[in-house]
Amino acid sequence: MRPFMDENFLLSTPTAVKLYREHASKMPILDYHCHLSPKEIWEDRVFENMTQIWLESDHYKWRLMRAHGIPESHITGDAPDREKFQAWAETVSMAIGSPLFHWTHLELREFFGWDKVLSGKTAQECWDFCNAKLPGMSARKLIEKAGVTHLCTTDDPADDLRWHKLLKEDETFSVQVLPAWRPDKVLSINKPDFCEYLKQLGTAADTKITGPDTLLEVLKKRMDFFSDNGCCVSDHGMDRVPGCIATREEADRILKTRLAGEKISSREEEGYRAYILDALGKEYARRGWVMQLHLGVIRDLNTAVFDRLGSDAGIDSIGVRVEPKALADLLDRLACENALPKTVIYSLEPGDNTALDTVIACFQGRGKGWVQHGAAWWFNDHKQGMVQQLTSVGNNGMLADFVGMLTDSRSFLSYARHDYFRRILCDLIGKWVEDGEYPDDQDLLKEIVEGICYKNALSYFGFEVPDHDKE
Amino acid sequence: MRPFMDENFLLSTPTAVKLYREHASKMPILDYHCHLSPKEIWEDRVFENMTQIWLESDHYKWRLMRAHGIPESHITGDAPDREKFQAWAETVSMAIGSPLFHWTHLELREFFGWDKVLSGKTAQECWDFCNAKLPGMSARKLIEKAGVTHLCTTDDPADDLRWHKLLKEDETFSVQVLPAWRPDKVLSINKPDFCEYLKQLGTAADTKITGPDTLLEVLKKRMDFFSDNGCCVSDHGMDRVPGCIATREEADRILKTRLAGEKISSREEEGYRAYILDALGKEYARRGWVMQLHLGVIRDLNTAVFDRLGSDAGIDSIGVRVEPKALADLLDRLACENALPKTVIYSLEPGDNTALDTVIACFQGRGKGWVQHGAAWWFNDHKQGMVQQLTSVGNNGMLADFVGMLTDSRSFLSYARHDYFRRILCDLIGKWVEDGEYPDDQDLLKEIVEGICYKNALSYFGFEVPDHDKE
Amino acid sequence: MRPFMDENFLLSTPTAVKLYREHASKMPILDYHCHLSPKEIWEDRVFENMTQIWLESDHYKWRLMRAHGIPESHITGDAPDREKFQAWAETVSMAIGSPLFHWTHLELREFFGWDKVLSGKTAQECWDFCNAKLPGMSARKLIEKAGVTHLCTTDDPADDLRWHKLLKEDETFSVQVLPAWRPDKVLSINKPDFCEYLKQLGTAADTKITGPDTLLEVLKKRMDFFSDNGCCVSDHGMDRVPGCIATREEADRILKTRLAGEKISSREEEGYRAYILDALGKEYARRGWVMQLHLGVIRDLNTAVFDRLGSDAGIDSIGVRVEPKALADLLDRLACENALPKTVIYSLEPGDNTALDTVIACFQGRGKGWVQHGAAWWFNDHKQGMVQQLTSVGNNGMLADFVGMLTDSRSFLSYARHDYFRRILCDLIGKWVEDGEYPDDQDLLKEIVEGICYKNALSYFGFEVPDHDKE
Repeated sequence: MRPFMDENFLLSTPTAVKLYREHASKMPILDYHCHLSPKEIWEDRVFENMTQIWLESDHYKWRLMRAHGIPESHITGDAPDREKFQAWAETVSMAIGSPLFHWTHLELREFFGWDKVLSGKTAQECWDFCNAKLPGMSARKLIEKAGVTHLCTTDDPADDLRWHKLLKEDETFSVQVLPAWRPDKVLSINKPDFCEYLKQLGTAADTKITGPDTLLEVLKKRMDFFSDNGCCVSDHGMDRVPGCIATREEADRILKTRLAGEKISSREEEGYRAYILDALGKEYARRGWVMQLHLGVIRDLNTAVFDRLGSDAGIDSIGVRVEPKALADLLDRLACENALPKTVIYSLEPGDNTALDTVIACFQGRGKGWVQHGAAWWFNDHKQGMVQQLTSVGNNGMLADFVGMLTDSRSFLSYARHDYFRRILCDLIGKWVEDGEYPDDQDLLKEIVEGICYKNALSYFGFEVPDHDKE
Repeated sequence: MRPFMDENFLLSTPTAVKLYREHASKMPILDYHCHLSPKEIWEDRVFENMTQIWLESDHYKWRLMRAHGIPESHITGDAPDREKFQAWAETVSMAIGSPLFHWTHLELREFFGWDKVLSGKTAQECWDFCNAKLPGMSARKLIEKAGVTHLCTTDDPADDLRWHKLLKEDETFSVQVLPAWRPDKVLSINKPDFCEYLKQLGTAADTKITGPDTLLEVLKKRMDFFSDNGCCVSDHGMDRVPGCIATREEADRILKTRLAGEKISSREEEGYRAYILDALGKEYARRGWVMQLHLGVIRDLNTAVFDRLGSDAGIDSIGVRVEPKALADLLDRLACENALPKTVIYSLEPGDNTALDTVIACFQGRGKGWVQHGAAWWFNDHKQGMVQQLTSVGNNGMLADFVGMLTDSRSFLSYARHDYFRRILCDLIGKWVEDGEYPDDQDLLKEIVEGICYKNALSYFGFEVPDHDKE
Repeated sequence: MRPFMDENFLLSTPTAVKLYREHASKMPILDYHCHLSPKEIWEDRVFENMTQIWLESDHYKWRLMRAHGIPESHITGDAPDREKFQAWAETVSMAIGSPLFHWTHLELREFFGWDKVLSGKTAQECWDFCNAKLPGMSARKLIEKAGVTHLCTTDDPADDLRWHKLLKEDETFSVQVLPAWRPDKVLSINKPDFCEYLKQLGTAADTKITGPDTLLEVLKKRMDFFSDNGCCVSDHGMDRVPGCIATREEADRILKTRLAGEKISSREEEGYRAYILDALGKEYARRGWVMQLHLGVIRDLNTAVFDRLGSDAGIDSIGVRVEPKALADLLDRLACENALPKTVIYSLEPGDNTALDTVIACFQGRGKGWVQHGAAWWFNDHKQGMVQQLTSVGNNGMLADFVGMLTDSRSFLSYARHDYFRRILCDLIGKWVEDGEYPDDQDLLKEIVEGICYKNALSYFGFEVPDHDKE
């Protein structure tokens, strides 16, 4: 029996250990997509106790606690922090087979140095031990301790990026905290607050939005502004790829109808979304930005919980599968105009992995790994999900060019997930080598492992090489 | 090489062996969903030979024999029982990779004590050996030998439950044989015999069904009657979750149209089904019954076979995938009225596992494991299918709260499938522990394994604790 | 650590090694579906260099090179052959996890005897070493060296089969090179060249096609002609099974409309396709031909590449999933008329494996393995894909009756894929035996392994037993 979560956790062969120790564990972290708050980074937030840092906004944990029958008072309600922590400890100790069990213990080990098993019985000890360390563990210190060189937050086009500006000017913090462009509200034409949002967006660019032309004009101004503040990545969250694009005339009519306060049909919505997405894609290509597409989620499914907590409350799920033809059509329209940006496509449905990789392979060619199959996302962010994604990319793409892991988290402790990913990656590659399926060639293996862990992302996104990493 | 199907079958690590021997194998069986005949249990049927007990109604075996080219005469036709047994023996010996190969040999070992490999060559010996034991192996004795404490049959709302009543009064048989409520005929509004069925159902409750109101009145009366006879579980078999619910007025019009002998559209059918399913769900919640949803099957696909043999003839398959949004809408409608019953959802398509678990997680919270992802069902009832279902629940839910295995079988010998499941469960958990992914804590492991094998189901369904099991 | 790709490559247990050495590796090859050129076989083409034989028409390699950022000039363009080879060597050396890495090195070992790792550094050595051997490695010699006894090419119904005739008459080449009937153009009623094609097809049968009746008359004449030249296999490539069959009258109207130069609707197209497919299926059954259905591909997705290179350019992907009901309806219509031919169904979407196997099991019974789940196809032609397909067939069908591997390739070196398949098969079966899940019975194992590798296909397709193989 191997020891429980020791330094060789998940590394089942000597080659895996070697790849992890000599390469993966030495790489810094490039977190090209997360949901950290730039304000909290700027303010260098300090957390008062483990419940604040762990449970306050972590809907992964909320889901697990609800599944275990913990009352909502002890999840998002008014129970005292210590009691919430107890409920979490009792829940997670039983969470065999869950990535949350591993994340929890990796975070306790890597950030706090607490190496026991969290359970109802050990909760008090853990609470005391870790709380005592929290005053020395501010947001910035956690990011630095994790070895992060760059991180991209998630920002609305109307955002003033004030925290990013302040962080850029602050010479005491060397990590590059960059904005990422997330124009979901621009595409959500049927949401109740859409017209109000467009007003706000127009104001941010000193331009009144009256139709697609002015909208795109405003978006370009805002992209200039984002670029000036270091942005080189966009991101779209979508239930599905819009399949049926509107013409310029149709888009004009649709948007004006909506701005006049009327509802538009779901077909019109789709046409509008495809039209704007196309236009944005071309802009991304022109600017050398990366386009990220997060596909297949349906949100806010539990009305009672939504009414109490709003979005991001642990009530989202996998929705429809990716339609390969619709995705291919989008990529083809852009490719036909020589305007396909670097693109990272994430699918929430693990069953879409193979189809996605086969579509992606049809649109390669402009550069190394031009179109990427994004890392195992959200509900797939566990050992099996990662192995499936990596294997699928290996089978139908060029795994060695993969840009690797991202955090996609609201928590400063989630950087442990990079370590989790790297162990799984090294174990998979190590197994192939140990089984005689790939040569034991240290030069090739170093290039592959360091590439996937860090270097591929650095060159793919075009980030500046950090000083201490220049060779 | 490990010995062929010995006492450590499927248990590949010392921890797996230990978990199985000390916990899993000691648990009784709670079979909360099966298709056993209460009449045969009451009459304590004795089988004349192995063909009767094994091949008479086992469409799993029929499919395998057909695939192997056995003529129908030797499957469901007029060939002598001995010849049918020979054909089965010749088929199963070649069935490498099939769960039927394992079930067959587990059943021969556990019920008959015959430990050789069944093949064309050994068929005569097996036939003689096992047939000689059959007179002492009646239906009740098989159930008792398997260690069953409770079993739920599958019963139509119009059923008079006479066999259940007789069994309840019989003090010589301690196993609780309880009815389960399966109102599929109530929802199948477009079936030719629907109107005739509603007449029969109305008669059972002394009420003429003239529309949804009287239908629901009748159903409530029948549920009272089922409750009085120990029922606390419902079950629905459906090709898909109806997505578009009818209003009360629409449901009234639709049902009356149908009762007038006219056809209704597939959209009307869907609206009606959703309306009745909702109403039933609320009743289940009010009564504390569990709602089971078996999703995604299409039936009776081979017309020629159906014309000869009718339903349950081995001509069913996986159909459409679960639509996460439709399922979420059903659960949300009930949850909004605080009327979501405990629910177990089974999907026939293994590719739906992850999506299903992510929808389920959105509706937890009323109690431990309130909504359950049901055990690997039917075509997934094998090692790979079980491992996939368990892993998926572990990844996106709370595996420790899983209510575990059910038989879903027409055969008294199928209780060996619980042993199959328990070995696979212990091997999976044992592997996690041996790999250092979960601590080797015997208290936690005992609680998890005994919970999944028996105790979770006991408390989830709210069954009486059997005398010999009270602690 | 096991040695890199030695003689026990992929064979992880002693039983696997034994099954491979004593059975699998000794079997000849029956390649019942490939895209080799009968002209090149007749002419006994000799290749000038490794780029010609490897890169000229291999869109698998093109995709990988594009993914790695190789410019098109060095893939399908004007770069010198040596430079293209260099680009391929640099690409494949990094292709960890790709079947192309394994195929490449299997081909270098088995056909050329070069046993190093191909990379940028070793490219020159490999180029010199292998090029020097090419003059002695003509098309026919490669086929013979691989141990092929029969191979079926892919031929249009209008083809004159001149090369097949010449090959049949040539007594110096003992391999049976047979035509296979691929009437995709007959079904593609909405393609621009459809009417022109029907003219050409009519000419081949001296009959003017004016509607479905004359079309079917022509097709029967052509099938007679194909039969006379040894054909006993048909093949259909389809995005999906047409779900809604036209009546004879509708088909008549639809085809005549199209022949008049008008467009028809997609619903009419589907009705026509189902009508013709049904009629063909009945003819196949009458003649004892096998019907192959390749389902779920979408082609030519990248317009820019297609405009430059045409079809088969590495721009195809997995499309829609198999609809179980539509497939079942097709099989049932034929079965109802006692006219279901032997059928092999391939799905491109690995997530369809289980559903496909459950549909197939509903239509068995006319003979051993009457309906087959085809080998892991195209994007699934790797270790994981093969293991998934074999396991799925084992779980829900009769794996021992599987007709096994085919090449489906344009390259004479691709016969190494049979070796790849056999190793994976023997490893999977060997693991089951070593784990005690199937008995270590050499008679049964020999029958299963030799059956799947060669003998099942020989009897399923009804090919003549080659002289040297008669027992």
